[in-house]
Amino acid sequence: MPLIVQKYGGTSVAGPERMKAVARAIIARKRRGARLLVVVSAMGDTTDDLWALARRITPKPDPREMDMLLATGEQQAIALLAIAIKARGEEAVSFTGAQVGIITDSRHTRARIVRVKADRIRKALAAGKIAIVAGFQGESAGEEITTLGRGASDLTAVALAAALKADTCELMKDVKGVMTTDPRIVPEARVLPVITYDEMLEMASLGSQVLNARSVEYAKKFRVPLVVKSSFEESEGTMIVEEEPGMEKTLVRGITFAREQAKVTVLGVPDRPGIAAVLFRALASADLNVDMIIQDVSESGITKISFTVPRSDLALAMETARTAADKLGAKDVRSDENVAKVSIVGVGMLSHSGVAATMFSALAQSGVNIQMISTSEIKISVVVEKARMQTAVKALHRVFRLDTRTVEAGKPFLVEPEKIGGGRKGAGRRKRGKSR
Amino acid sequence: MPLIVQKYGGTSVAGPERMKAVARAIIARKRRGARLLVVVSAMGDTTDDLWALARRITPKPDPREMDMLLATGEQQAIALLAIAIKARGEEAVSFTGAQVGIITDSRHTRARIVRVKADRIRKALAAGKIAIVAGFQGESAGEEITTLGRGASDLTAVALAAALKADTCELMKDVKGVMTTDPRIVPEARVLPVITYDEMLEMASLGSQVLNARSVEYAKKFRVPLVVKSSFEESEGTMIVEEEPGMEKTLVRGITFAREQAKVTVLGVPDRPGIAAVLFRALASADLNVDMIIQDVSESGITKISFTVPRSDLALAMETARTAADKLGAKDVRSDENVAKVSIVGVGMLSHSGVAATMFSALAQSGVNIQMISTSEIKISVVVEKARMQTAVKALHRVFRLDTRTVEAGKPFLVEPEKIGGGRKGAGRRKRGKSR
Repeated sequence: MPLIVQKYGGTSVAGPERMKAVARAIIARKRRGARLLVVVSAMGDTTDDLWALARRITPKPDPREMDMLLATGEQQAIALLAIAIKARGEEAVSFTGAQVGIITDSRHTRARIVRVKADRIRKALAAGKIAIVAGFQGESAGEEITTLGRGASDLTAVALAAALKADTCELMKDVKGVMTTDPRIVPEARVLPVITYDEMLEMASLGSQVLNARSVEYAKKFRVPLVVKSSFEESEGTMIVEEEPGMEKTLVRGITFAREQAKVTVLGVPDRPGIAAVLFRALASADLNVDMIIQDVSESGITKISFTVPRSDLALAMETARTAADKLGAKDVRSDENVAKVSIVGVGMLSHSGVAATMFSALAQSGVNIQMISTSEIKISVVVEKARMQTAVKALHRVFRLDTRTVEAGKPFLVEPEKIGGGRKGAGRRKRGKSR
Repeated sequence: MPLIVQKYGGTSVAGPERMKAVARAIIARKRRGARLLVVVSAMGDTTDDLWALARRITPKPDPREMDMLLATGEQQAIALLAIAIKARGEEAVSFTGAQVGIITDSRHTRARIVRVKADRIRKALAAGKIAIVAGFQGESAGEEITTLGRGASDLTAVALAAALKADTCELMKDVKGVMTTDPRIVPEARVLPVITYDEMLEMASLGSQVLNARSVEYAKKFRVPLVVKSSFEESEGTMIVEEEPGMEKTLVRGITFAREQAKVTVLGVPDRPGIAAVLFRALASADLNVDMIIQDVSESGITKISFTVPRSDLALAMETARTAADKLGAKDVRSDENVAKVSIVGVGMLSHSGVAATMFSALAQSGVNIQMISTSEIKISVVVEKARMQTAVKALHRVFRLDTRTVEAGKPFLVEPEKIGGGRKGAGRRKRGKSR
């Protein structure tokens, strides 16, 4: 019988009625013929509420004790779900992260999984029971309770699926799957039947809320077959898979965006080896999460370096950058909060220079000015004025025909950029800076 | 430096402000010179709320999963208390019951402690840290989370004090100490400076809410010096100690009562050896918690047996008693829910027959009719009409002068019963039945 790992998020189990609905869905899944391991998040806003409670005591609660506190959220959810399943006559047993041996390092509130034992899960499954495991938490070598960071219940599910060599890991969400873009911005957005790990990784890190990047990385590393689907309705969802030959021609899979961005530019930097190292080592030491980095081609020995950070980190980023700029003999440091990032994601797009051209000309035709460009193997990101972000997303969704194409495994599509306002193919290349 | 175990109940830590106040009190206690181990209950109504939540899913939630759920209440409290203490610059570390090795049997929701390891507490104390431990919970040999039953956080504190050979175990309550009786009934009720384990045990099992009997039993068994005091104000509280020579003449220490009682009488039982055994084995098999048992002297080979049970158990008790009565050839089984139990408690009272006489005549003079009498070494309990319970408690509190006497260790008192309406000394003896 296949082994299925299912993961339900906090919204899916918020309150007794939803808990019962999830219990019914789980039992139905098992009775269709599967050994079932279910990972659950804390109910509704529990985690936020616990943070708020701790902050009413002190603004900076001790991380070790925060983990002790936060871990109770998932523990309550697994107990109640097991109660709901057993009340319907199916055998189930719940386990905390510590009990199933999800061994982590000891970085409290953001621990990383180092090993997964899962002995108790194997026993429970062998006894025909539905095993229910608390997401988001583990135990360090020193037997301290740890948590894995926000959104990491997905990671728990993926790690357990890997350890137990599960046939599928189903991430049950309050959406139908991974979409071409956010339907609140583009009503024509569609569910993608299939997407590669790498594309999903870019989507996640570029602002798609569906999955967090760590979970996708882990799934890719251990080749865990992932499915993202709705916990509220029957749907095929989105399969996340390794790249296949049939997919080679896929160009643009989806459009992502991130609103809460800020841009910092260090101006008038004498261009010599090591300047970027000085700046970004300083930013790393301040524990700042730098996103896009652009260094323009230098003119007469003077260059500038720009980068983006989450807007909440801007003050600290400016302070750090100013200190580094003094050391480097740079002229000035400027910031801009009025920016957003828009990205297109798709395997193999960089081998088709037409994609970049299509993107840039579509933006130009919609009156969206591009402030920064950054590329990787499978994505092109641009920073634009925040007020133009929606326009940009809509234009890109349209130009790459994401609203109409049927993308299925084995049925690749090929965008034909020459059909869309050609003639400016080089534009992107010229504007694009060095990317790190 | 002395090792002090302190236990704070749910009311003391209900909400961030109280949590901070408790943290201040704990730090002050440590700085006065002590190694400190603190046991905490779940905040406020958390445990009740969790039960209610589970019952919204199913009326009979699985016990193993209930323990998984309930244990989170104390885990939240210890984390928040540790956060509050560390925020004030003192070192503290919290532990779950499982983490400190409170090993129990596997009777979920009412487990019994079989062993206490406490290695991690020893280490924390040796490092100068305040150790904070979740009350009410443990871990079975099979590494399942267990809970010890209602009110058992006191038991956790006592068990840890015993295991670590603590100098004192301070049970911090929302009352100033153990009182002569309930001040809501008798406004003149006073805090007792000292009481023996045995007296406290009787008080607890007879309806005093201050401590539960299991905690006192455990303290007596391992000679743990207990103090019951207020968590909200500085007070000496009540010391609970082994009997001392100086205390020998203490007669009546306090008055307890229990309202939610019911009386069952099996009438017309042919008096032959083994009849009580048949009846009470049947009641025990039905898991009924029988309290007082009275068998009257038989008349012409026919006797009757009465017993009391918590009112909530009456239906089951009647059913069980009727079946047993048929076997015994008894005539009838009757019940009365309109009763209450009132008891006087004090070491050595049975060696002073005057105490019983004083009790019975005081009740008679207040117009309280006695329906049943039961005695032990250190208590006399009577069953009276429920409407007369308050009158009885007040009369007894007055006649034994509990409102005025200063009772201190080494300063024993002796009630002088001859001063109070004498002449009916034999009354109690005559009425009293055989007690089991």
